[in-house]
Amino acid sequence: MPDNSPQVKLEGVKRLGGTIFPCEPTAEARVATCAQVQRETGATLIHPFDNAQIIAGQGTVGLEILAQHPHVTRILVPLGGGGLLGGIAVAVKSKAPHVQVIGVEPEGAAEAWVALERGHVTPLADGAHSIAEGLLVTIGQRNFQIVRSMVDRIITVSDQEIAAATRQLVTRARLIVEPSGATAVAALTRYPELSGDTVCVVSGGNVDLSRLMKIIAAE
Amino acid sequence: MPDNSPQVKLEGVKRLGGTIFPCEPTAEARVATCAQVQRETGATLIHPFDNAQIIAGQGTVGLEILAQHPHVTRILVPLGGGGLLGGIAVAVKSKAPHVQVIGVEPEGAAEAWVALERGHVTPLADGAHSIAEGLLVTIGQRNFQIVRSMVDRIITVSDQEIAAATRQLVTRARLIVEPSGATAVAALTRYPELSGDTVCVVSGGNVDLSRLMKIIAAE
Repeated sequence: MPDNSPQVKLEGVKRLGGTIFPCEPTAEARVATCAQVQRETGATLIHPFDNAQIIAGQGTVGLEILAQHPHVTRILVPLGGGGLLGGIAVAVKSKAPHVQVIGVEPEGAAEAWVALERGHVTPLADGAHSIAEGLLVTIGQRNFQIVRSMVDRIITVSDQEIAAATRQLVTRARLIVEPSGATAVAALTRYPELSGDTVCVVSGGNVDLSRLMKIIAAE
Repeated sequence: MPDNSPQVKLEGVKRLGGTIFPCEPTAEARVATCAQVQRETGATLIHPFDNAQIIAGQGTVGLEILAQHPHVTRILVPLGGGGLLGGIAVAVKSKAPHVQVIGVEPEGAAEAWVALERGHVTPLADGAHSIAEGLLVTIGQRNFQIVRSMVDRIITVSDQEIAAATRQLVTRARLIVEPSGATAVAALTRYPELSGDTVCVVSGGNVDLSRLMKIIAAE
């Protein structure tokens, strides 16, 4: 785990019996540390998003949305590695192809949006920057293929819009949500035409209260 | 409103177009200020809990629980003025009399529990004290009659148990909840035999994040 992970995330892993191997908060360090742990311990890698079973598991979110809100016409999903978006797209398009599935990326980490334009995935030249640090990963290859064939659209939101949506979810919906989890709601500010029978997926909530206060105060 | 009300509560009232008349945070000051506002403005008093329509409205929480969780055997409800508990009891007992309805009070503000023992409502000699400040009101007369005839049991929880339940709801369920709202969950710590097909009503969430952090840190 990146050594700047929120305390609540570290505590959650420990509570579930996990052993934490810290690393620097860069993609290179993550990959290198992960490979080293595999070598030293014989552990099997389960990729957090570029893995067929993880994608399928996250797709159950789509099935739940269809079951609980059958009249939904549009689903907005935060987009980072693309597992959640990809899984929801596969599930929803197989059951209800008329329902729009839209991915929402931070402007400063719009790798999937750029990848769709270019037709292939390449890291951003200037790196990825956003308060939505859970989305600062490059979309997986499997996820990119799914997104390209099944997702209707990718849109972007600014950090300011993300902070405003986080504040709204905290003060109005009384949810503890990290900025990454608020991106889909942020999209409704920039694109009001997307509201209606729309479901915004709010995931996740790994944020320390002290940081949450700062985000809300700064907005 | 008491002049020590949380900022989030004041902002909520303003957002909804309300005019705030501040008063000292005592029962006497509330009653006196309210009477004065009525005299000066001709406003009609709608009592926040000792009012038949308010009680009926809060009873819809009970109907929702029965609709969403038909196998429920027990409902735990925070108890202050008694409107929420009374309403839920009337609704649930009329539809599903076998379902237990239990009120949960802070130990330091157990006026309803004492009233049940004595057979009538009297303010506590030493006043009411608890971190669950939303429950520091004396049970209403109507509510007491309902509680006496329809509620199965009243139980109490300590401030420490309330703080621990608040922490659990924040860090595990990712809900912003005030201590008053966490009392029903706190009861499951002290009375584990009450778990099972049990629903705990979690209401409300009028707490500033800075105070929430202190409660969680102190626990």
